Amino acid sequence: MRKIVIIGGGTGTFTVLSGLRDYPFNLSAIVSTADDGGSTGILRDELGVLPPGDIRQALVALSPDSTVLRELLSYRFEEGGLKGHSFGNLFLSALEKVTGSFDKAVLEASHILNIAGQVIPVTNDKVHLRAEDVQGKQINGEHKIEEHIWSEAANLSRLWLEPECTVHPLAALAIRQADLIVIAPGSVFTSLIPNLLVGGVKEALLAAKAPIVYVCNVMTEKGQTGEFFVQDFAELIGSYLGKRRLDYVLYNTKVPSATLLENYKKEMERQPVRLDRRRQQNLPYKLVGANLLARRPKTQNPTADSLAKTRTLIRHDPRKLADILHAILVLKLTKKYTQI
Amino acid sequence: MRKIVIIGGGTGTFTVLSGLRDYPFNLSAIVSTADDGGSTGILRDELGVLPPGDIRQALVALSPDSTVLRELLSYRFEEGGLKGHSFGNLFLSALEKVTGSFDKAVLEASHILNIAGQVIPVTNDKVHLRAEDVQGKQINGEHKIEEHIWSEAANLSRLWLEPECTVHPLAALAIRQADLIVIAPGSVFTSLIPNLLVGGVKEALLAAKAPIVYVCNVMTEKGQTGEFFVQDFAELIGSYLGKRRLDYVLYNTKVPSATLLENYKKEMERQPVRLDRRRQQNLPYKLVGANLLARRPKTQNPTADSLAKTRTLIRHDPRKLADILHAILVLKLTKKYTQI
Repeated sequence: MRKIVIIGGGTGTFTVLSGLRDYPFNLSAIVSTADDGGSTGILRDELGVLPPGDIRQALVALSPDSTVLRELLSYRFEEGGLKGHSFGNLFLSALEKVTGSFDKAVLEASHILNIAGQVIPVTNDKVHLRAEDVQGKQINGEHKIEEHIWSEAANLSRLWLEPECTVHPLAALAIRQADLIVIAPGSVFTSLIPNLLVGGVKEALLAAKAPIVYVCNVMTEKGQTGEFFVQDFAELIGSYLGKRRLDYVLYNTKVPSATLLENYKKEMERQPVRLDRRRQQNLPYKLVGANLLARRPKTQNPTADSLAKTRTLIRHDPRKLADILHAILVLKLTKKYTQI
Repeated sequence: MRKIVIIGGGTGTFTVLSGLRDYPFNLSAIVSTADDGGSTGILRDELGVLPPGDIRQALVALSPDSTVLRELLSYRFEEGGLKGHSFGNLFLSALEKVTGSFDKAVLEASHILNIAGQVIPVTNDKVHLRAEDVQGKQINGEHKIEEHIWSEAANLSRLWLEPECTVHPLAALAIRQADLIVIAPGSVFTSLIPNLLVGGVKEALLAAKAPIVYVCNVMTEKGQTGEFFVQDFAELIGSYLGKRRLDYVLYNTKVPSATLLENYKKEMERQPVRLDRRRQQNLPYKLVGANLLARRPKTQNPTADSLAKTRTLIRHDPRKLADILHAILVLKLTKKYTQI
């Protein structure tokens, strides 16, 4: 079976995995473990566990539809002292305590949930994301860095993990043996790049024979990447790949409805990520544009995390994404397929 | 398959179910829902769910050995804001929220845990235990009543549930169709009698053809029942059975080690429950005495709730209990088997 590795964390990874799950692929989701916000942050602080949030979303994405367990893992307590805690996070944290390691916890959870494929934390080391902005100010922690970006404070100039950490051996193996490597859509600085900062990931990517596809976000996020074109995102990601380069950059060509766009702009200062028409020549990767938009994003992922559900109304369609990724894998798409 | 109904709640019920689970019986555990202490109490208060604690213990008892899920359900968080919460309680409470009813939650949990038999909350109504002592003082809530008993305050004279509540139809059905009805060992006022107070339970017991066995506690508890003999426990339970009576009273004849007894007396003011030799004639039930003691109670139920594990070191042996209950069911034991 053809092996696809998906690198990321958060809602974008959920979407890619949800789409690919129904294809006869051998899927490995490699997921960031630098998260320290919300329910996940509290569990990290209080229980000393590895951050369960992104892993949980990947597990849910790969679990069979319409099971109560799937729904349960996305449930968030709404009252009292448990308010805001995702049950799935508590599940993974308790499993880590009972089995003695996060690794075993993820394996057991995969078994209990009967998931298709495997979910691998990018590292088993307990790491924290650090950043420095152009004014030399240091920002500590994924959540704080996210806030820094959103607040449109000075741009980040450097990003690293502390302490130094090593890639999970299974993640390195999956990358090396892959037939296709997908960098999922998601927050660039806080969901995607943290994976690439882990020691050994660049080396594994360099050793891999598979093409790397980066799935560009549909909408910009407020702050540093607020005015980014597709090529800017690709360049930023590319700069964290060491000696490898992106082979394909997949972007959305469908313009969302005017009403939705207006809401996004007004409420979140977000706009569609567009292709920069002036920069289409001599790119180090192939651009693949297609209609990737979900028609009814709210109802298409009914079991998605309730926060994730409201986070993005304009989002990728899991099936459309999977179709194009399949085509890239099978047909080795080149530029002439740009408009699909 | 022969049908055995076990009525109770807490550690004693866990022990009986653990023993009977490995026999070819059709088991129904009918479990009290008046609990309002600890993790369970917090979840009742904050989430408005039915109390999961006793149900969880029964589910764990009936789940297959050596599964991580079983261990997980007994795990208690030890740090931070989740400290003291049993993961299993959170599991049942989240399931109740996701499925919309406690009933469905218990069914789903039974399915996920692959339990042998069924666990039925004695009622689906949200009830609270109330008591009045001989001085006319009212005590509200199972936990408070337990404290009242332990503090050796004035004896309780009356016990009832508020609001009035109705037995779960499946519980009534199981009782009526049973081949044997077991009242498990446990705290008489707070784990056993609350089941008998539920509207319709006495009627179901009266309609049942099965003999009722009461498994008497091994050790007394401090307070009102501190000086009780086997016959006193039997009489107290019997007084809550309406027009039915107990058919068998099963008690332990083996004296625990002197060291353990000394510890129990010193630390908890508890002593073995003994048969009153002066009162063996004309009893309305058959007395069955046997060595029911577990040799190494601490290691025999490694997956039991960590609180339960330390709660009682002198306890029933699940296998010995199951053997005698089986004998009662098959041989219709009479007095001549008193010393087994």
